Amino acid sequence: MKNEQILLAERPKGMPTTDTFKYEETEVKAPKEGEVLLQTLYLSVDPYMRSRMNDAKSYVPPFQVNEPLNGGIVGRVEESTVDHLQKGDYVVGYLPWKRHITVKAKHLQKIDPNVAPISTALGVLGMPGLTAYFGLLDIGQPKEGETVVVSGAAGAVGMVVGQIAKIKGARVVGIAGSEEKIQYLKEELGFDEVINYKTTENIRADLKKACPDGVDVYFENVGGEISDAVASLFNKGARIPLCGQISMYNLEKVDVGPRIQTRLLMNSALMKGFIVNDYAEHFGEGMKQLGEWVSQGKIKYAENIVDGFENVPDAFLGLFKGENLGKQIVKVAE
Amino acid sequence: MKNEQILLAERPKGMPTTDTFKYEETEVKAPKEGEVLLQTLYLSVDPYMRSRMNDAKSYVPPFQVNEPLNGGIVGRVEESTVDHLQKGDYVVGYLPWKRHITVKAKHLQKIDPNVAPISTALGVLGMPGLTAYFGLLDIGQPKEGETVVVSGAAGAVGMVVGQIAKIKGARVVGIAGSEEKIQYLKEELGFDEVINYKTTENIRADLKKACPDGVDVYFENVGGEISDAVASLFNKGARIPLCGQISMYNLEKVDVGPRIQTRLLMNSALMKGFIVNDYAEHFGEGMKQLGEWVSQGKIKYAENIVDGFENVPDAFLGLFKGENLGKQIVKVAE
Repeated sequence: MKNEQILLAERPKGMPTTDTFKYEETEVKAPKEGEVLLQTLYLSVDPYMRSRMNDAKSYVPPFQVNEPLNGGIVGRVEESTVDHLQKGDYVVGYLPWKRHITVKAKHLQKIDPNVAPISTALGVLGMPGLTAYFGLLDIGQPKEGETVVVSGAAGAVGMVVGQIAKIKGARVVGIAGSEEKIQYLKEELGFDEVINYKTTENIRADLKKACPDGVDVYFENVGGEISDAVASLFNKGARIPLCGQISMYNLEKVDVGPRIQTRLLMNSALMKGFIVNDYAEHFGEGMKQLGEWVSQGKIKYAENIVDGFENVPDAFLGLFKGENLGKQIVKVAE
Repeated sequence: MKNEQILLAERPKGMPTTDTFKYEETEVKAPKEGEVLLQTLYLSVDPYMRSRMNDAKSYVPPFQVNEPLNGGIVGRVEESTVDHLQKGDYVVGYLPWKRHITVKAKHLQKIDPNVAPISTALGVLGMPGLTAYFGLLDIGQPKEGETVVVSGAAGAVGMVVGQIAKIKGARVVGIAGSEEKIQYLKEELGFDEVINYKTTENIRADLKKACPDGVDVYFENVGGEISDAVASLFNKGARIPLCGQISMYNLEKVDVGPRIQTRLLMNSALMKGFIVNDYAEHFGEGMKQLGEWVSQGKIKYAENIVDGFENVPDAFLGLFKGENLGKQIVKVAE
């Protein structure tokens, strides 16, 4: 049976293009003992994947040129050699970008389609949700009445961060890049203020107005000048979970700007980088709490679903143009 | 009775000069109820005082122009109106730069001259010692076999940091600015390696050689390019107590350089600013432990004592030229 996969054609310099990717026809492999064969249904594209395209030490190993890219994928079992997975079951895992995937069953987690739509296993009930949960609660530790700022607020992680911060009683200020996003965050998700970084004339002034009591927690998704502006408002004892630096991922030069150290020093502030796997031991607890909040309607989610395996590169590139409201997902099959 | 005091003559732009300071004759005030009159014996000059010369929000309130500067001072009681302090007792406190000081007794702590020389109340058994103790142990948390790098290693804080890290079983690499300092740190204090930042041709290469297993803890006293170089060696889970930024204090422009955020993100590293007063509740515990280590000879100390109240400005300015090995103190009277 024919299969199709997406390879890393070349390591991008700066912003990736469609030339970064290469489609290739291949064959479906029959599953061996302990393996299952999946049909890919939903494929996740995430900003962190840009880092993996560089041949550099990073928090996850680099993708290899002429090898399939990989990431979060939801699939349906087509053939199984193991007892605990049956044909028709839904699963999620870190998997290669292929239409059909033959993989060891131990690398998969089963999804219950009755809890929430299966695509949420790539978003609010998956890696982005857990990233928001642990980064905000373990590092940010927002307290009632404090001010939490989140950049990339309309992204898959940012919108969960803001909603958890609201659950904890904080004032929540988002930074996002379109009026549509701002309206959604304020009206649907209850953000107190959202600043449009693309249209603001003076982000420092707008932030100051939105944060009259300063900033206690800054959940950092974007980096660059936006973050420099937030740093000017840190309160004594501020906490800064460093989750991403999307504005920096495509830079070809070293990211130069005002050093943050003085701001941290002046405010006894804490800044900590993390990746979700730092909390792997606690994923069960996080999933349980996120599932409860979603089922109670305390956490809402948005997905930006693009149709077609052929549109995976465009969906990925769109992340860096700020096109997605919520989790960017590609629907590969029904 | 005649008295003499040192005022802030003007706020310095960039590096302070002798014009920053102004001597003034004044009168000794008789102590009122609850007050004591002290003779100043030892006066501390510290890098952090530079920040207080700016009229800017910082971690301590700014000095005022035409008012006496102040800081750590050890004095001898000349007159007392309170029972628990007698003439001849030694005390330490944050006090104005005067030869004779009239002050409320509640602002003073008594020193036992039998434990250690009274000048150590300004150094290893005072603010710098406590700064090293809490910054390293609470934020840095060095573990046996880890690599701890400390900049400003031959300063009052740095040399205590290195020795505590050795007590905890870490490999200790210092950064300092003269061969005399390097010899002292290696031969007297047991540092494993010390790099001369003034003579090195390639600090990154030298650091890499001195830290073959990377850097787990970086105790940051200086900032700037030295710190950028250390950051390139951070290990996964590195901790960076931010204590000072002496290379930055006299800058007239914003401190621009490679943003540290990516380094922290890639390594799930933690960076935290602090000042010693963040740990005020635990000073008793810290003093007890430091006193034990000093009396056991596990922590040695060095003092750079300059004679004469007239030399206070020069002693302060010398801090920024890297002149002091250990705690810089001015001896004002016998």
